[in-house]
Amino acid sequence: MFYKKIKSKGLAHFSYFIGDENEAAVIDPRRDIDIYLEEAEKEGAEIKYIFETHRNEDYIIGSKALASVTGAEILHADGELDYKYGKEVEQDKKYKLGRLSIEALHTPGHTKGSHSYILNDYDDQPWMIFTGDILFANDVGRIDFYGEENIPEIAALLYDSLYNKIMPLGDGVIVCPAHGAGSVCGSQIADREMTTIGIEKKSNPYLQYQSKAEFVSEVGEMEAKPQYFKAMEAANLAAPARTDLPFVKALKANIFEEKAAQKDHVVIDIRSESDFASAHVPSALFLRDNILASFIGWFIATDKKILLVSDGSYPEETIRTLYRMGYENIEGYLYRGMLSWNMAAKESSSVTTANISGFCDFIKDKNKDQYLLLDIRKEEEKEEEGYLESAVEIPLNDLQADLNNYLAKLDSKKDIFIFCGSGIRSMTAASLINAKLEAEVKVVLGGLTAWAESKCILKIKK
Amino acid sequence: MFYKKIKSKGLAHFSYFIGDENEAAVIDPRRDIDIYLEEAEKEGAEIKYIFETHRNEDYIIGSKALASVTGAEILHADGELDYKYGKEVEQDKKYKLGRLSIEALHTPGHTKGSHSYILNDYDDQPWMIFTGDILFANDVGRIDFYGEENIPEIAALLYDSLYNKIMPLGDGVIVCPAHGAGSVCGSQIADREMTTIGIEKKSNPYLQYQSKAEFVSEVGEMEAKPQYFKAMEAANLAAPARTDLPFVKALKANIFEEKAAQKDHVVIDIRSESDFASAHVPSALFLRDNILASFIGWFIATDKKILLVSDGSYPEETIRTLYRMGYENIEGYLYRGMLSWNMAAKESSSVTTANISGFCDFIKDKNKDQYLLLDIRKEEEKEEEGYLESAVEIPLNDLQADLNNYLAKLDSKKDIFIFCGSGIRSMTAASLINAKLEAEVKVVLGGLTAWAESKCILKIKK
Amino acid sequence: MFYKKIKSKGLAHFSYFIGDENEAAVIDPRRDIDIYLEEAEKEGAEIKYIFETHRNEDYIIGSKALASVTGAEILHADGELDYKYGKEVEQDKKYKLGRLSIEALHTPGHTKGSHSYILNDYDDQPWMIFTGDILFANDVGRIDFYGEENIPEIAALLYDSLYNKIMPLGDGVIVCPAHGAGSVCGSQIADREMTTIGIEKKSNPYLQYQSKAEFVSEVGEMEAKPQYFKAMEAANLAAPARTDLPFVKALKANIFEEKAAQKDHVVIDIRSESDFASAHVPSALFLRDNILASFIGWFIATDKKILLVSDGSYPEETIRTLYRMGYENIEGYLYRGMLSWNMAAKESSSVTTANISGFCDFIKDKNKDQYLLLDIRKEEEKEEEGYLESAVEIPLNDLQADLNNYLAKLDSKKDIFIFCGSGIRSMTAASLINAKLEAEVKVVLGGLTAWAESKCILKIKK
Amino acid sequence: MFYKKIKSKGLAHFSYFIGDENEAAVIDPRRDIDIYLEEAEKEGAEIKYIFETHRNEDYIIGSKALASVTGAEILHADGELDYKYGKEVEQDKKYKLGRLSIEALHTPGHTKGSHSYILNDYDDQPWMIFTGDILFANDVGRIDFYGEENIPEIAALLYDSLYNKIMPLGDGVIVCPAHGAGSVCGSQIADREMTTIGIEKKSNPYLQYQSKAEFVSEVGEMEAKPQYFKAMEAANLAAPARTDLPFVKALKANIFEEKAAQKDHVVIDIRSESDFASAHVPSALFLRDNILASFIGWFIATDKKILLVSDGSYPEETIRTLYRMGYENIEGYLYRGMLSWNMAAKESSSVTTANISGFCDFIKDKNKDQYLLLDIRKEEEKEEEGYLESAVEIPLNDLQADLNNYLAKLDSKKDIFIFCGSGIRSMTAASLINAKLEAEVKVVLGGLTAWAESKCILKIKK
Repeated sequence: MFYKKIKSKGLAHFSYFIGDENEAAVIDPRRDIDIYLEEAEKEGAEIKYIFETHRNEDYIIGSKALASVTGAEILHADGELDYKYGKEVEQDKKYKLGRLSIEALHTPGHTKGSHSYILNDYDDQPWMIFTGDILFANDVGRIDFYGEENIPEIAALLYDSLYNKIMPLGDGVIVCPAHGAGSVCGSQIADREMTTIGIEKKSNPYLQYQSKAEFVSEVGEMEAKPQYFKAMEAANLAAPARTDLPFVKALKANIFEEKAAQKDHVVIDIRSESDFASAHVPSALFLRDNILASFIGWFIATDKKILLVSDGSYPEETIRTLYRMGYENIEGYLYRGMLSWNMAAKESSSVTTANISGFCDFIKDKNKDQYLLLDIRKEEEKEEEGYLESAVEIPLNDLQADLNNYLAKLDSKKDIFIFCGSGIRSMTAASLINAKLEAEVKVVLGGLTAWAESKCILKIKK
Repeated sequence: MFYKKIKSKGLAHFSYFIGDENEAAVIDPRRDIDIYLEEAEKEGAEIKYIFETHRNEDYIIGSKALASVTGAEILHADGELDYKYGKEVEQDKKYKLGRLSIEALHTPGHTKGSHSYILNDYDDQPWMIFTGDILFANDVGRIDFYGEENIPEIAALLYDSLYNKIMPLGDGVIVCPAHGAGSVCGSQIADREMTTIGIEKKSNPYLQYQSKAEFVSEVGEMEAKPQYFKAMEAANLAAPARTDLPFVKALKANIFEEKAAQKDHVVIDIRSESDFASAHVPSALFLRDNILASFIGWFIATDKKILLVSDGSYPEETIRTLYRMGYENIEGYLYRGMLSWNMAAKESSSVTTANISGFCDFIKDKNKDQYLLLDIRKEEEKEEEGYLESAVEIPLNDLQADLNNYLAKLDSKKDIFIFCGSGIRSMTAASLINAKLEAEVKVVLGGLTAWAESKCILKIKK
Repeated sequence: MFYKKIKSKGLAHFSYFIGDENEAAVIDPRRDIDIYLEEAEKEGAEIKYIFETHRNEDYIIGSKALASVTGAEILHADGELDYKYGKEVEQDKKYKLGRLSIEALHTPGHTKGSHSYILNDYDDQPWMIFTGDILFANDVGRIDFYGEENIPEIAALLYDSLYNKIMPLGDGVIVCPAHGAGSVCGSQIADREMTTIGIEKKSNPYLQYQSKAEFVSEVGEMEAKPQYFKAMEAANLAAPARTDLPFVKALKANIFEEKAAQKDHVVIDIRSESDFASAHVPSALFLRDNILASFIGWFIATDKKILLVSDGSYPEETIRTLYRMGYENIEGYLYRGMLSWNMAAKESSSVTTANISGFCDFIKDKNKDQYLLLDIRKEEEKEEEGYLESAVEIPLNDLQADLNNYLAKLDSKKDIFIFCGSGIRSMTAASLINAKLEAEVKVVLGGLTAWAESKCILKIKK
Repeated sequence: MFYKKIKSKGLAHFSYFIGDENEAAVIDPRRDIDIYLEEAEKEGAEIKYIFETHRNEDYIIGSKALASVTGAEILHADGELDYKYGKEVEQDKKYKLGRLSIEALHTPGHTKGSHSYILNDYDDQPWMIFTGDILFANDVGRIDFYGEENIPEIAALLYDSLYNKIMPLGDGVIVCPAHGAGSVCGSQIADREMTTIGIEKKSNPYLQYQSKAEFVSEVGEMEAKPQYFKAMEAANLAAPARTDLPFVKALKANIFEEKAAQKDHVVIDIRSESDFASAHVPSALFLRDNILASFIGWFIATDKKILLVSDGSYPEETIRTLYRMGYENIEGYLYRGMLSWNMAAKESSSVTTANISGFCDFIKDKNKDQYLLLDIRKEEEKEEEGYLESAVEIPLNDLQADLNNYLAKLDSKKDIFIFCGSGIRSMTAASLINAKLEAEVKVVLGGLTAWAESKCILKIKK
């Protein structure tokens, strides 16, 4: 028997390669399918089935690509959708994998057609369940895909799937969800490498409700959805054919500068916040590689031409993430990084940074109207970590979505200190507003976490 | 949080690297410790603790080696033994790993001091349990280390550990044992990549008993222990210092031949049974790489000088296995394999093979006294797969242990056909007896499995 | 500056990735182009140029595939051919690579259009020369592509290219040929990892002639060409688009047997000769992985459906080689190798082997008309290693090309012993004739080399 | 035949693994010897010989370590030295490697005992020469190891070795030196991946002299030697036993801070200059990973305890370099890099940076006495790239060697702009002086290269 959890960093997406003897299945394959082929080669297995738990919104599904190479059968969960490939999974069938089998379990709630898949063991007993976006470690799936008005209805479906279908399978069954901590598909997913129904029943806050009514009334609050979800939904009805991971050119400063000046191009800087602060390409948007997948879907349309600034090395992981998210046009990355840009005497911008003690010193003898605090955290972070009194609060996604409006509001001659938990997202905010405001925009490195650790006279209110 | 199961092929040994933030622990490290250092480097973690579940018998423990590099604290389970390193684990302590903790649970039964280790989650709830050799997927540990007469006492301890300590932790707790299918430490371990208490409660035959008395009376039957266990037990009280994996020389045929002729040297051929059959170094013992770990401990003392015959490539995996098992003297392997031996015009031996239809044809018109069937399977295999009527039954380990005696019994002029499940172990038996008998020794490729699939007039009795 | 020689095993093909700063070129890219992309990523380089030294005959060129991914310009040598892609290299142009440049040098002789490419260094001095199939270490290219009657003309061209164009560049210039030892493109290529014009002038037998006339009269003898050359020549005028390396399925014995029975399928066994001897799929052709590239082009048309028998592991290297040679249809490989076939009770064949001492014993008291020696070596081997008196001499390629004819000649009731240098190719011959002759066909392991080392009464004549 | 050039980045050291059939030799092995073992395993070779070209000064030799594992014979060049291991190479012996052989050639000049090693080919003709530190691509070895007064004598020896021993071997012989561009052992070594005697005769400035007298009078100028050379010389007489590459712990900010405060500890920041500029551990010395090997030997004694600041990932390559250079005490690296330091609210320092246009704007309306230019380049760079008029010139190594003296000279209230070629070494200078001067210390990113590309009114004088 073989089992492999394939983690796609950035998206925090989990797909699974499982099987027995020479028969394998893949659950929710990602777009760059080589990893499944490698596993199949290692195990000496053919890939017989590809199971989709639902029509995914946050990445390009690799089902059709993988089927074209392997001849696998693709089985859809959301049967009512108008797919251009594959076929609907059968409800009462045991799909054999050597001595094991897979069985579909209709678990609506995230989408109406969402299915979980039960892996039965040698004795035909439930062993694992692949829950897609229905049940995560410590969280459940979004229920806002059918509009605000339908949330209660979908929440009720989700309740039934969780409480009446999944939980009764038994505490010992291993739960294999489609996402881990950091995914845009669930804001409270725990950093739990492995879990079971028993563990979720004890720890997952959404499995603690006494009644369906209570569940429905509380589960509703959702974050906004990134704009690229629409493009993914459309793409995943057709499912793209197999393509290779893009090869991206290293561009010398001159060429990079020319391209950056063109209208449909966007420069994304994936380095550290402190590297970006000292010098960056003037028009660059800051999305450090560890937050890129969480924000680019909100900020950049998938048809934009993208130019990357890395530390000079080939930004392989970022290219993979962009490819998985459907960004097809990666035009190049800066050859040898900012060092070459600087040596070529190209114009660069900078963002002023402070450390926490510098900030605390600064505000000590100032009146609150002599500077401005800009807090870009999300509501739930503020609830948990505390509030900054007198700060202007504009969550980063809102700032980006309605930038001109907020710029007008921020316009002042005061120094603006931007805060988030660590300083990383603050630098993204700075990259959005720095050039457009007269005020000096400053990022405090270490952010709110540093502040909480410091002896600053101004306190965070919990 | 990070979790990594380290599989040592051959021995089917599992060790674990787990932790959170920058603090890690290793459970039952193997001798070649590089893998743990690599994981620590990847995670940016220091290894704080090394936990041993018991004094291991089947491989050299890497605790002292790993501690010497990392400064980790070694914690023993079998506190009553006279260890030359490390210290006894504390019963009521939570050993912190970032936001997680590890707690010792005294689970005697395999050894009197055996401990399991519970990993507690962020909420201080049991998440996983590292059960060492107490509980495996579908099996439990050996209870024969204190002599035949003490088996009932040890069995009773094991019952209490399983039924009163481990099972009550809850079905959802993930079970991480020290061995998988193929280990000499448990003959019925299932090929189950992941398991939980709930799954074991449903499927493990040893967790189905209604009473302690019943358990004690049934659990006792054990296979013999390989002779190298004694050497491992002694070694693991001292625990060897860190050494590097041996570098083994490629020896040209002349040198190889010279060494092979020396008294304290033994030639082991790790190729396929069919490769061995055509031509092999005359004195070679056949132990194909996939069965080597299961048999060498019975056949060869750990201080022997070993010469290997591979397919010509560096036998890295075999060298690792031998090193883990305490075989320190690997003198060389044959440069470019048997091809070079043959081209150098060295003497070689061969074993006659037949396919199943050839065998069936052969016996068709013969009387049973015109040939001899030698069945080298273990009793439990015969129970499951069926018996060969009129066969001489000598389990492979017995044959090896008392070779001269059995040779005398086998001595005849009849053709001898050796059978096991597949033909692999039959070839090992052939390599033991072929040169020493006048009769023609033949191996049927595909073994009993082929026979069962064939239309042979002679039938296997179930 | 960066330089990387890419070796394609089997074909013994060398391609080169060279460049400076962020500009790279590839000389004669192979079909599986990932390696060049990886190098470009590592160096942070774009691939600007692809240079072809001539229209290749022995493998599928990767030029168009590579250009489609990188936007590189393809430059042909054989400008007179009707290429469907790329353009002709310019004679007086220096193609810039950072501070270096590449310059074309027309060196007809292998093909009329063949070019070499000179890499000029920072001071614009010749540094290396990429000689394609014109000049190898210790050998020169074939001159038989324009028919027997034109060999003198082509030889004269080759002489001028070597003696009047390449050699005058200076002894210190490094020579980078397109093939190494083992290629079908040159039978005397030396195992010389690096060479220079100076070294070749000293050691290469073809650079020792005093006059053109002498050169022309001696250089002409050539081996026959493999049949797949025609297919490659045609393919390389169009150059296939990028495709992925095939993914090949592991087939269980039943399916494998079914497919093997179909007419357009051919089973190729790539294991060792001794493994093959014990048991193989009845219809299998034996081409051990280390000789496959040298013979398959003669034996099997590129449109055949291929089934592989490996040691059970995924035959990655063989699949790559087949793909490079234009074999598009690899239908599968046997799951878990012959072990699974045997266990499934499938029919198998075997070939009798002997070691050299067994052979010598056998012939000791026999008359020469009681057995038959079949020598399948090439003429040049016999010249070098000696002749087997009274042997029937049929070079392997001839045997295969006119099998039925030779079978008739070999038909006798005598034992046939097949000989080559090592026993490998003898097993290929055995796989061709064994089933079709009444006589017992035997392969002597170690072959002529063993014989020469032995004390056999029958001597090899030098 | 096999040949492998092993490049040790940082030190720009080349060692070589060469051989034929199953016999290999290593020339000048580095301390971390695993790479040679891997090559030997791949080739199926035993390592018979280890040849040292001279007693090395810039890295710890791996000879004894490698011999202890492989049983190889160590052969010294500098026979007059009092080695504690190995033996002197024999002058007239051909050390056999399969069909090849190696021959010693006494080539004094770098050290009195320096030897080159000739690899003879299958025909016993010179094929390659391993020249150690005598002859590099475009450069020759240092001749200052016997004191200033003996330079003419050593230069004369070097002349004879080059002109009368090496050059006569023939232009076609391939030259394999011990160092490439970037080594401290030669300041003009060219970035030439492969070279020959012919190429060096054409391009190497030191091989162009008409007379010995001329050579002797011109070759003498040398840079100062780094202080760690003494430690290496001593170490390499004994040669350390095999040890493993150190495993370095990730230290959380608190622990890191505690250790950094201890007297014998030194913090080295290996990130980019722009990353360092924004925030760094206050006491940190800036040595970006790509310059570390070139400067640490001047700056830091080998017995210091080293703490590293990386981008957060395990600084494997830096640890290797330090280990090769004899830095035994690497105490830790900062867990998750400066992000964790900042989030822990630890004190940090920063260096002001400017881009070139900012700098040009700044000086436009200033008098030259309102700011100070500090040029830290070496004399030869200034000769080649041009001079900064009115700049204070203190080469980086001098600044470091006599820091307090120079600090006194620099002490002023003027803004100090530091310049080197790119800004990297300027940041090292800034890390030395920033905290100790009242003036504001600024680094211009892109350095002199940017300046040369800019339209600055102040011009660089060539």
